[in-house]
Amino acid sequence: MTSLGIGLIGTGYMGKCHALAWNAVAAVFGDVARPRLAVLAEHSQELADRKARELGFERATGDWRSLVTDPAVDVVSVTTPNAFHPEMAIAALEAGKHLWCEKPMAVRLEDAERMLAAARAYGKVAALGYNYIQNPIVRLIRRLLDEGRIGDVNHVRLEMDEDFMADPEALFTWKSEASSGHGALDDFGVHPLSLVQALFGGVRRVCGHMAKPYADRPVEGGARRPVETYDIASVLMELENGASGVMALNRSAWGRKGRIALQLFGHKGSIVYDQERMNEVQLYTAEGAQETQGFRTILAAPHHPPYDRFIPAPGHGLGFNDLKIIECRELIRRIGGEAAHLITFEDGIRIERTVDAIARSAHEGRWVEVTGG
Amino acid sequence: MTSLGIGLIGTGYMGKCHALAWNAVAAVFGDVARPRLAVLAEHSQELADRKARELGFERATGDWRSLVTDPAVDVVSVTTPNAFHPEMAIAALEAGKHLWCEKPMAVRLEDAERMLAAARAYGKVAALGYNYIQNPIVRLIRRLLDEGRIGDVNHVRLEMDEDFMADPEALFTWKSEASSGHGALDDFGVHPLSLVQALFGGVRRVCGHMAKPYADRPVEGGARRPVETYDIASVLMELENGASGVMALNRSAWGRKGRIALQLFGHKGSIVYDQERMNEVQLYTAEGAQETQGFRTILAAPHHPPYDRFIPAPGHGLGFNDLKIIECRELIRRIGGEAAHLITFEDGIRIERTVDAIARSAHEGRWVEVTGG
Amino acid sequence: MTSLGIGLIGTGYMGKCHALAWNAVAAVFGDVARPRLAVLAEHSQELADRKARELGFERATGDWRSLVTDPAVDVVSVTTPNAFHPEMAIAALEAGKHLWCEKPMAVRLEDAERMLAAARAYGKVAALGYNYIQNPIVRLIRRLLDEGRIGDVNHVRLEMDEDFMADPEALFTWKSEASSGHGALDDFGVHPLSLVQALFGGVRRVCGHMAKPYADRPVEGGARRPVETYDIASVLMELENGASGVMALNRSAWGRKGRIALQLFGHKGSIVYDQERMNEVQLYTAEGAQETQGFRTILAAPHHPPYDRFIPAPGHGLGFNDLKIIECRELIRRIGGEAAHLITFEDGIRIERTVDAIARSAHEGRWVEVTGG
Amino acid sequence: MTSLGIGLIGTGYMGKCHALAWNAVAAVFGDVARPRLAVLAEHSQELADRKARELGFERATGDWRSLVTDPAVDVVSVTTPNAFHPEMAIAALEAGKHLWCEKPMAVRLEDAERMLAAARAYGKVAALGYNYIQNPIVRLIRRLLDEGRIGDVNHVRLEMDEDFMADPEALFTWKSEASSGHGALDDFGVHPLSLVQALFGGVRRVCGHMAKPYADRPVEGGARRPVETYDIASVLMELENGASGVMALNRSAWGRKGRIALQLFGHKGSIVYDQERMNEVQLYTAEGAQETQGFRTILAAPHHPPYDRFIPAPGHGLGFNDLKIIECRELIRRIGGEAAHLITFEDGIRIERTVDAIARSAHEGRWVEVTGG
Repeated sequence: MTSLGIGLIGTGYMGKCHALAWNAVAAVFGDVARPRLAVLAEHSQELADRKARELGFERATGDWRSLVTDPAVDVVSVTTPNAFHPEMAIAALEAGKHLWCEKPMAVRLEDAERMLAAARAYGKVAALGYNYIQNPIVRLIRRLLDEGRIGDVNHVRLEMDEDFMADPEALFTWKSEASSGHGALDDFGVHPLSLVQALFGGVRRVCGHMAKPYADRPVEGGARRPVETYDIASVLMELENGASGVMALNRSAWGRKGRIALQLFGHKGSIVYDQERMNEVQLYTAEGAQETQGFRTILAAPHHPPYDRFIPAPGHGLGFNDLKIIECRELIRRIGGEAAHLITFEDGIRIERTVDAIARSAHEGRWVEVTGG
Repeated sequence: MTSLGIGLIGTGYMGKCHALAWNAVAAVFGDVARPRLAVLAEHSQELADRKARELGFERATGDWRSLVTDPAVDVVSVTTPNAFHPEMAIAALEAGKHLWCEKPMAVRLEDAERMLAAARAYGKVAALGYNYIQNPIVRLIRRLLDEGRIGDVNHVRLEMDEDFMADPEALFTWKSEASSGHGALDDFGVHPLSLVQALFGGVRRVCGHMAKPYADRPVEGGARRPVETYDIASVLMELENGASGVMALNRSAWGRKGRIALQLFGHKGSIVYDQERMNEVQLYTAEGAQETQGFRTILAAPHHPPYDRFIPAPGHGLGFNDLKIIECRELIRRIGGEAAHLITFEDGIRIERTVDAIARSAHEGRWVEVTGG
Repeated sequence: MTSLGIGLIGTGYMGKCHALAWNAVAAVFGDVARPRLAVLAEHSQELADRKARELGFERATGDWRSLVTDPAVDVVSVTTPNAFHPEMAIAALEAGKHLWCEKPMAVRLEDAERMLAAARAYGKVAALGYNYIQNPIVRLIRRLLDEGRIGDVNHVRLEMDEDFMADPEALFTWKSEASSGHGALDDFGVHPLSLVQALFGGVRRVCGHMAKPYADRPVEGGARRPVETYDIASVLMELENGASGVMALNRSAWGRKGRIALQLFGHKGSIVYDQERMNEVQLYTAEGAQETQGFRTILAAPHHPPYDRFIPAPGHGLGFNDLKIIECRELIRRIGGEAAHLITFEDGIRIERTVDAIARSAHEGRWVEVTGG
Repeated sequence: MTSLGIGLIGTGYMGKCHALAWNAVAAVFGDVARPRLAVLAEHSQELADRKARELGFERATGDWRSLVTDPAVDVVSVTTPNAFHPEMAIAALEAGKHLWCEKPMAVRLEDAERMLAAARAYGKVAALGYNYIQNPIVRLIRRLLDEGRIGDVNHVRLEMDEDFMADPEALFTWKSEASSGHGALDDFGVHPLSLVQALFGGVRRVCGHMAKPYADRPVEGGARRPVETYDIASVLMELENGASGVMALNRSAWGRKGRIALQLFGHKGSIVYDQERMNEVQLYTAEGAQETQGFRTILAAPHHPPYDRFIPAPGHGLGFNDLKIIECRELIRRIGGEAAHLITFEDGIRIERTVDAIARSAHEGRWVEVTGG
């Protein structure tokens, strides 16, 4: 186990999350070398210095380009706003670094395709930050599916809802500008689609609908500005495995804080999951006496690896940040040449293409095939 | 209060439910005259005799036509399989009787339109059995909407799921024959659509998708027969009030027994409901201190009329059959010329037209307008 | 099947509930003769007349003594306040009537013992209104216990909570007077104890504690009067089967409306139940792969008799009033000489003795044996 | 902010948990100096070496006594089995180190009293590992109580249940030996009692009952050995604030994995919490229109500090290990002379005395005063 040198670009929500993961991964797992937290980049040297001190990085820079070429850096964490991903990711790959880029790949599909091309060209690991698939409970779901516990899945329902855009009197921000993307679809939809990707493999055809709950929002000074993005998206889907599906997304859903809900129906049973209660899953199997069949609530436990690396007792609960630690270890293993459970650029591009197909479908009011599956 | 004479056609699931309601309505409400349970019709005199004895009807007949013209009958309950509704309903209306017909109106839209024409022509009350809208909790939802507690509703999600078609090895029955209708869509979809009707008023445009979880089913003797109906239906919708919507239906959903789930999102809050826990509703309002906002579980109680007519204590729970008693009282009031909360043929036809539009949309793979709203 | 003539004394909460049950029992079950609703007694002829009309009784009287001796009456429903039970019950038994008396038997144990003596002396069926044990879900629990699904039960937790006494500024009523009894203990405790009786058979030793959440309450005019009863009671128990137990009762528990919660722990599994969700039960069995063990939520369904007599579809839900209909049918069967699931005076006296032992224990601050088990 | 040197004794369940906390605390909070992970002690040099490498400690030793006197160590984490706590804790305090000792203080009360005396004598911070009180949701509960949101609390119910002793055929271990303590009471009860301590301040009188679900357990070879400890404990309590209480503990409760359930009843509302869903709490307040009152589910969010230091988005969930990070930061602040939310030996001794009083009460079958509050 040789120790990896880490470069971190960005220290916001996900930047801190990456830093915590790099800090913790060796102690939690005990089977990977402790990474060296080499360089941290922020948009000013001053901020970078302060954050490096807090987050435990050795050096700091106000110039991310110097980070990606720094010889002490083996892996670059890109956690900046989505618009910056393509340039940074491609620069890091060109510099021969492994990459851990937050989702989604890019705002525009063509940029994501360029990123994929760079990953292919330079041959390094290019992983995306899709941490929800790392939840031991989601791994349990995959295992239950693999073992045929609910049989062949024929119908899937996906929901993702939060309420950070729910207040109609909240000031107009960049999230309501068309340049930020489509809205809930790409801001959100990539998460449930990553679960589809991890559990079933992909989407074949889509028919989308996008809606604006609020036509305009206030700006400073009292005027109102028309909203350009869609806080709500609803999708009919046909998956590659033949199952029918529905996906509903709403970032103006009052009361929902981190809901990512799955309902999976198979010919022998069903599975129901909600990320807001991320340490449990509901399983129904049509087995045994009918009078005692029911959805059972399974609590996360050591026999759901790698929960055991965090806590030796069942039902005590992992947190959101723990998922990133798991993802971090998968990345380290992949870099070390081992099999790992990750969404790489090769997988991620399919998510981006699905998003793109849904958006086109919604604008054109018709079914659209997802290309290049 | 003059006592109404009741004729009941059919004594299956819904027939018994009607009979229980006619038996109980006066004692529960105390404000309607006790109906006379006059005549019961079944397909044989013998069965009719037995059922009349059990269910408390004075007379019995093996000929439903004699029932609808019987002078002792003022109201006819039609609870036979859907295919019989048009003929029986129209005959009863022609005979000058009030009508309480189980949903849906008919298998084919043109028959439903004929039924509506008859209701209009003969001027009697023609009500449909959409009992879920009678739940005091659903009435509370309507009241919360009317009072603006969650503001303008901009997004709606509807689900209805049961599992009586979930076993792929269950024998092929008439439910899998095309002559029975589309499948989950008309078998099920009319229930959530009745809630849309009661809460919001109607649907403007739809885009549907229907799926067969199982291509074929076994028949006696070991062979398999192709399934002709769709046990799964998924729909994108635009409501007349401008809200976007999603409706998902699955009668092969293992573990779901009577799920009719609503999620209503407004600009000030949200409401979540599931018929499997029919005595409670979740309400979220973006009011008060943020740190104590949350979905609150409201239990059915006497201050949610007409719960109070059943039980004077809160949280003790009504049952499915109680909803029919409430519907029965609404019908009696309407017959008496009072305002009542009912889905009549005038309202019901909009549900049928929506179903028809969804089916056409699914077959043609495109958005369809709901006509004649 | 000969038809029983019914006399009903009292038309309040439970009186109406009895009336609804007598009205419905034949139609629901189809295997008992339709009772004749013969005579209804209230404290005035006028009220009795009105209630008889509403509830479907043939005759009315302002004199309950005439009812209990009326030759048309075979069974007397006693649903008056607890203080009247002994006199009315004993009079009815003396008159040779069967008796259906609401719980508890009496305010004072010696009165209950007299009632039992009368029941023994006159040889008629003397049943108590303990409807919660009639819930098909509670019957399922008993069956699961009988089948050993959770093994030998070694620990039991019982809770009953409502909030009708929770407001400290609600006016002083008779419920706060010592003459009404101990407080939550006898007002409430008899319900969970009826479940203990039905599921396990009885209690051997108790150690109780009773508390007053509010020392006084306002009376009309602005003064305050000391509260004499205990709205909270907590009990340690040893059951006759050797299990240890805890019972907690609170009628000033804000937010609880009809909570009767059971937690049953056995050497092979556990069962959890809450009357506020009376159509479901949680079952955990230590069977199969550990990684998919969990509490399963079983929804009431036709394979949980006699749910099937109400509704042929699973998960649609019975209501509180339906439990009384089931109890009514059990009573009719018992009167007809059949085995029936009922709490008779013979069983009920053990509940009363347990209550008495708990009250003595609480006052004396020590463990007390339940006598005369 | 000067950096503290850390010594860790023990690397089991809690040892790793401490190590993760020391690793993460600076990066999570950004307001404390990054600790130096100086020395780790295990029972052999070899194991210590391996664990030091995994957990990121600079040095390792097989001799814990050398650790507690090591000049590089400022704080000693004691995470060994309970029987070792007194000797190690007192040695560390004598050596002038701050102490972070896992709960409970000791197996025997007299040892705990000696530990307290040492802490007082040497004047260093002596904190106990009671991490559940650090949950932002528990802090929210305390704040709601302080703000009077549910008014004066008059009744409290506490439950703690797990199932690691539930299998009667699991081999006899030290947990069933009397030398390990009383059983569930001290193994478990200290956790809910720590919540009582943090929320209400202490317990005045107790009446306990302890039970053995299984009389004996198998030993290697096939024989059976009598169980000496009590896996079940039930307690009636009077709190110092005058509230009545019930505490029920069961470490043989099949299906419970990490349940620590609170029910707090006040004169204006109620609070319900369960550690198995540690990111949510139920709050009922008797405010506003009755028809929309209900228990609301509040999800952990950034406005519940210090959740915000982990995740800037609501509803995403902390994990069990995060609680120890919070506790670690409180400890560092206390060492730095700041106010902190911790259970020190001064508070912890009250928990131990309560446990001792309960055990005596159970053995003597009577109420016992908690001494030296």
